[in-house]
Amino acid sequence: MTMNKYIELVDKKLDEYLKIEYPESIFKSMKYTVTLPGKRLRPVMCMEACRVFGGNVEDALPTACAIEMLHAQSLIHDDLPCMDNDNFRRGNPSNHKVFGEAIAVLAGDALLSYAPQTIIEQSKNLSAETVLKVLHTFVSAAGAYQLIGGQVADIKSEGAVWENIDGKEMLEGKTKDETLYYIHTNKTAALFKLALKAGAIIAGATDEQIAEMETFGQKFGLAFQIYDDIMDVTSTFEELGKTLGKDAEEGKLTYVTLYGLDKAKAKAQELLDDTRKIISKYNSDIFNGILDKIESKIK
Amino acid sequence: MTMNKYIELVDKKLDEYLKIEYPESIFKSMKYTVTLPGKRLRPVMCMEACRVFGGNVEDALPTACAIEMLHAQSLIHDDLPCMDNDNFRRGNPSNHKVFGEAIAVLAGDALLSYAPQTIIEQSKNLSAETVLKVLHTFVSAAGAYQLIGGQVADIKSEGAVWENIDGKEMLEGKTKDETLYYIHTNKTAALFKLALKAGAIIAGATDEQIAEMETFGQKFGLAFQIYDDIMDVTSTFEELGKTLGKDAEEGKLTYVTLYGLDKAKAKAQELLDDTRKIISKYNSDIFNGILDKIESKIK
Repeated sequence: MTMNKYIELVDKKLDEYLKIEYPESIFKSMKYTVTLPGKRLRPVMCMEACRVFGGNVEDALPTACAIEMLHAQSLIHDDLPCMDNDNFRRGNPSNHKVFGEAIAVLAGDALLSYAPQTIIEQSKNLSAETVLKVLHTFVSAAGAYQLIGGQVADIKSEGAVWENIDGKEMLEGKTKDETLYYIHTNKTAALFKLALKAGAIIAGATDEQIAEMETFGQKFGLAFQIYDDIMDVTSTFEELGKTLGKDAEEGKLTYVTLYGLDKAKAKAQELLDDTRKIISKYNSDIFNGILDKIESKIK
Repeated sequence: MTMNKYIELVDKKLDEYLKIEYPESIFKSMKYTVTLPGKRLRPVMCMEACRVFGGNVEDALPTACAIEMLHAQSLIHDDLPCMDNDNFRRGNPSNHKVFGEAIAVLAGDALLSYAPQTIIEQSKNLSAETVLKVLHTFVSAAGAYQLIGGQVADIKSEGAVWENIDGKEMLEGKTKDETLYYIHTNKTAALFKLALKAGAIIAGATDEQIAEMETFGQKFGLAFQIYDDIMDVTSTFEELGKTLGKDAEEGKLTYVTLYGLDKAKAKAQELLDDTRKIISKYNSDIFNGILDKIESKIK
């Protein structure tokens, strides 16, 4: 299946799953951000992981859509005035600019429950054990031990006062390098790991194969975040659809602000090379295509 | 088991489930609101429903705690400045007053994932099918079709401009009576229905018994919300631990503002009488004790 075919499948299902009912504003707000045009990287990678392990791509579709809902949820809440205070997302006004802060908070909350609800209700071909394993992977990734923890460390490091301990700058027991690694692992790589692992679980992959997908997601996720940090410096609003240059301005801890642009590019390339080695055996045009695209942007 | 024994069990487990890890602020914020002293009505009712249908109360404990986490989540987000803007909760500063708005938003988010995670990880004695049924009931109650929908209708009705259609005041296709019923059913009764149904499911109750628990939760939930609205007018800060008299001030749609105090008391009594009839066959000191307590307050 081509990338575009996958995206088409996801977009069609997201539209179908997200109905507008009473009270309308909450359902409209949920649907607004989820269905903004996007690359649908996470759902595509979820379905492709299912395919490479011999699973039926359609079986991974509800989970793929749920992961996109979770991704949208994190964007809605990240954009709030009390968080990153961003007025644009994917080239459009952010959720709270359209629906107000209260509804934006509640739309995020509602997506956090509707995503697992979708997995449960729509995964009719899977056994209860498989659905439960997918759900466990899902809620673990979404919570304070991964996604939220990463966001919190990100917020806390922004303009933080680092303590000097034995000549090292420390915050809550971690150096800047360690903090950055924690943020990238949890804020960014967590969703890719979730997508790839869930796809493998749905296909009935072995524990070893699932672990390999986790390594793939971790390496790719770190590369993707460094790429994203590079784009914040080198891209345009038209290309990215969100406010740029905010990282340096707000004293955010990123690979670029910490090590500079050249080292960031070299690190992203190294991680992409590692990723290619891991996935070479799967002969996946989809996985390779995604890596090619990121690689071309950081050259 | 006595009410106090149940509460002790729940409090002990909540303390155990909610550990403080890196990054500390998020875990502290989650734990802060969940462990504020409370009546633990929902978890107690969950465990008692499990007991009356012959289940092992300990098996319902993880789900009971997860429901208390969900309840705390809704309180944290309801108290936010963009929502009800309340500085006090259970006699203590609300979550965002202690941890700031960003962490309060994220703590609520994290609880929405940690609650189902707790159900999955701690329900080792239950079959995958049973856990999945409990999770489905849980996420359905937590989302836009129930809890969040109720909160949205509540916010939207506050100071809303009602349209006059054929001599009736209408908002989004509903009269004031219908809107109030929707809010009470979804914002309040949903959590009681969830608690009672989940307890029954864990005990292996029949569909008919589960449906009866739903009716119990619906009637009791409506009575409880009317009682809560009455308290907003007649109680003291010391007794309730939150800001009072806000309903009338903010033009909130409540049973008291819509029908007056006397009719509210009569309606609550009628609902409690109905509830007693439903549960009389279970000879539950716990259920009866809860009804007695509410009844004594609305006299």
